[in-house]
Amino acid sequence: MTTVRTDAIVIGAGIAGVKASIELTKAGVSNIILEARDRTGGRLNTVKTPNGRSFDLGASWFHDCLDNPLFEKTIAKGDIKFYFDDASLNLYNKDGYIHDDERLVPIFEEMQTYLETYWTPKSRENDVSIREAAYQYLLKKKNVLTDFQLKNAPQLLRSFELWIGSSWDILSARHICGDKHLGRNAFCLDGWSSVYNNELAELSQISGCGDDTKRLETSNKLYLNTEVKKITFSDWRKEITIKTKNTKTNKIDTYICKYIICTAPLSILKLQKNEVGSIEWSPKLPKQISSALDNLSFSALGKILFEFDEVFWPKDSDRFFCLPDYDAEMYNKVKRGDTNSGIEIRTSEKDIKSAPDAEGFTHPVLFLNVYRMNGAPALACLISNPLTKWIEADPQNRAWPVIKPLLAKIVSSLPNAPKEIPAPKSITCTNWTTDPYARGSYTGLTVHDEFEDGIQTLIDAKGIFDGKGRVRFAGEHCILQGSGCAHGAWRSGAREAAEIVKRINNSKL
Amino acid sequence: MTTVRTDAIVIGAGIAGVKASIELTKAGVSNIILEARDRTGGRLNTVKTPNGRSFDLGASWFHDCLDNPLFEKTIAKGDIKFYFDDASLNLYNKDGYIHDDERLVPIFEEMQTYLETYWTPKSRENDVSIREAAYQYLLKKKNVLTDFQLKNAPQLLRSFELWIGSSWDILSARHICGDKHLGRNAFCLDGWSSVYNNELAELSQISGCGDDTKRLETSNKLYLNTEVKKITFSDWRKEITIKTKNTKTNKIDTYICKYIICTAPLSILKLQKNEVGSIEWSPKLPKQISSALDNLSFSALGKILFEFDEVFWPKDSDRFFCLPDYDAEMYNKVKRGDTNSGIEIRTSEKDIKSAPDAEGFTHPVLFLNVYRMNGAPALACLISNPLTKWIEADPQNRAWPVIKPLLAKIVSSLPNAPKEIPAPKSITCTNWTTDPYARGSYTGLTVHDEFEDGIQTLIDAKGIFDGKGRVRFAGEHCILQGSGCAHGAWRSGAREAAEIVKRINNSKL
Repeated sequence: MTTVRTDAIVIGAGIAGVKASIELTKAGVSNIILEARDRTGGRLNTVKTPNGRSFDLGASWFHDCLDNPLFEKTIAKGDIKFYFDDASLNLYNKDGYIHDDERLVPIFEEMQTYLETYWTPKSRENDVSIREAAYQYLLKKKNVLTDFQLKNAPQLLRSFELWIGSSWDILSARHICGDKHLGRNAFCLDGWSSVYNNELAELSQISGCGDDTKRLETSNKLYLNTEVKKITFSDWRKEITIKTKNTKTNKIDTYICKYIICTAPLSILKLQKNEVGSIEWSPKLPKQISSALDNLSFSALGKILFEFDEVFWPKDSDRFFCLPDYDAEMYNKVKRGDTNSGIEIRTSEKDIKSAPDAEGFTHPVLFLNVYRMNGAPALACLISNPLTKWIEADPQNRAWPVIKPLLAKIVSSLPNAPKEIPAPKSITCTNWTTDPYARGSYTGLTVHDEFEDGIQTLIDAKGIFDGKGRVRFAGEHCILQGSGCAHGAWRSGAREAAEIVKRINNSKL
Repeated sequence: MTTVRTDAIVIGAGIAGVKASIELTKAGVSNIILEARDRTGGRLNTVKTPNGRSFDLGASWFHDCLDNPLFEKTIAKGDIKFYFDDASLNLYNKDGYIHDDERLVPIFEEMQTYLETYWTPKSRENDVSIREAAYQYLLKKKNVLTDFQLKNAPQLLRSFELWIGSSWDILSARHICGDKHLGRNAFCLDGWSSVYNNELAELSQISGCGDDTKRLETSNKLYLNTEVKKITFSDWRKEITIKTKNTKTNKIDTYICKYIICTAPLSILKLQKNEVGSIEWSPKLPKQISSALDNLSFSALGKILFEFDEVFWPKDSDRFFCLPDYDAEMYNKVKRGDTNSGIEIRTSEKDIKSAPDAEGFTHPVLFLNVYRMNGAPALACLISNPLTKWIEADPQNRAWPVIKPLLAKIVSSLPNAPKEIPAPKSITCTNWTTDPYARGSYTGLTVHDEFEDGIQTLIDAKGIFDGKGRVRFAGEHCILQGSGCAHGAWRSGAREAAEIVKRINNSKL
């Protein structure tokens, strides 16, 4: 057992952790990073496909481009290419291409206004799922909607599923409308690992490791394969002791510090004491923190890249969105004017038990036309829970049968549509739901969550150990300005480093 | 000179005045309506074109369809047809059709978010024109915009001109972003006079005039051609005396009442004492009211209907928007990174002195494809000040030369474009700027206006005469929920009638 002493310990080598370490190091606060995985980057993870192309399993876009300092930094540096994939979005349902004349997009926009009018982040009491909200909208407006619109407009509302990663059965009407997007979204063409690596290189430089980020490990600044098991505070010595287990060697080590910045994902913090991968706190976290964790949720956006020999789908659109087939029960009840939707109120997903209908159109799927981005004959599909969890359990067998009928319909609108849709050369899929250090993708917006208050409680981080603010939380789940995003995580890392620097400086006075 | 006594007098027989009279009458408050024009309806005015088609010179849409009780009433009644003209909007500039791949719409949306982020209705201090705001946006984002976008995106922001009716030189960044639209807009196919006439028929019924609304005049409930000259309050008799002049006979009459609801347009209320059509108040209106009037502005949205023999323009789009040619000075300054836009700060329009460039594309113009609405070979063009004022001064000679080059460009994208654009069979144009009882279209959103506060001051109507709330204001300029709209005016009429009923009931206690 080795024992290491340092001023501050950063748990997690994602972009929040690296940014925190950079700012601590710059301020002269000694610090190390502990990372459970055998790689850095966390939920920024660019992989190579079997055909040698880069694909981001984690973050893919610079979001909120009006308020994204990481995007601005990247542009200023000038070495990373991006693509605004917002030129055009084609809509399809089971019957094929949906023409503008159906007016689904204006109705979708009106539904969003309806959500914003009847639910606000402050209206805690009357939160409902967006499925229920869609029902209420239809009931109110059915006299001015066509039959096609009554059937399909609510399915377009399910495009929210592909922002958050959970189904409309549990997505919160109250929180969805507070989820403001500050500007356009730029798809990162070079992979987010390149953005992350720029940060890691900065850390390497200021840590005296030069350009070789591998030296962060050999010089004991960054510890990979190091799973945090227990965090103990000694009130007598005013010290925090972190007990870790090396995932390769099972070696137990001890790290002692005054401050920690914990960037473990929300999903890990939410684990119960005896669950695999859980972190034990001694003394345990105070009630307000554990309540905040209970009242936040974690979703699972999935992504699947299909590589083909050539492009056989429309080349003139950035995105194709396939609406699920209409909800016959919802439609019939609305037609009857039934004020009770009968929609079940729940806050957790129902797992998929067997393969979805072979005809497809059971879940919303957004296709990104990768060809438009970089010329590659590839399509990336975004999916949400519960489909993500089901496909990620066996992507090589499960993904294509779900996607193929959708792609066939997309292609059918082309003048020279191929008779048979070619099978993909490769399938590259996310595995966040099966990754024990992720257990999903990022923070969700579930009915009855206390999203803003919960996040603020984690930011405040009061009442932990001796109440001196030694334990800080950072990551995409600990920030409101860019929540769920890489730039938000990055911002939160800088913020928490500054909090620790402030405390250290105050203690010197 | 005749003298008429009644409990309450409604000034103006627009939809605010008629609704006020309905509610007063229902509550048993005796009342009459004084109208300066020789017709009812005010700024709801459906006229017949030379070819016998209906065309609304005033309000055309049911706006805010999520929050429009007049729309709901109309749907419930079921006798008025409407059309949601939001299926598709084609964009054109001097070079022709603008493809989705130019991404002007996503940038327009980002510019709106930018406006909402940097200006709010509360941020009184830093108000600028949206032309200046566009400059600041471009300066911030120029590194991620193409040359085409730098030139054309700001011109798309000028589509706001066709919501408000004034130019981007004076449109307020602070107020534009507070101008929320609550739902879709339904174009009224039967003409707004039919909606108005339903209200008038209701008044006729409850006033004992049966179905014949003409009897409202003969039974001395409604006085046309009756211009209000002076409103005097006698503190001794606790009475308001209204002196009027008959515009046909020049006869002076006197009306005596306890309460008035003044629905004269903002433009009339803003007139100085000796200007033609001004209303003299004795004692004069208190400072807070006159200040509120000074700090609100009046704009001029113009509409021109062109009838043709047949449709030669695209049949598959609801609307065509022609962007003005790019602003070379703005473009060059942005390219240079000049932080000072050099854009003149002003709050009034510069009149057009000579015919705009014969090549066209000098002002934003929105074409409504009337063919899509009702099958007629006609186009309606929306224009804003200062172009409205210039064209309305001589529409038969001035309108077509401005519109023809735009239409030629719209048509040029068609496979079988006619070589020569046919001249219209008829031109029907608004005349709000030359109408002495309108002097424009409706309330504007000008830089440095105190929009919300000003309107609230008119609603509160405090300190007038004996301070007992005898004078009430109603109309599109006296309401926040539907401001500038017919349903807002209607709502305000009901609201002020209720205020008077409340006061009368209280005085009986």
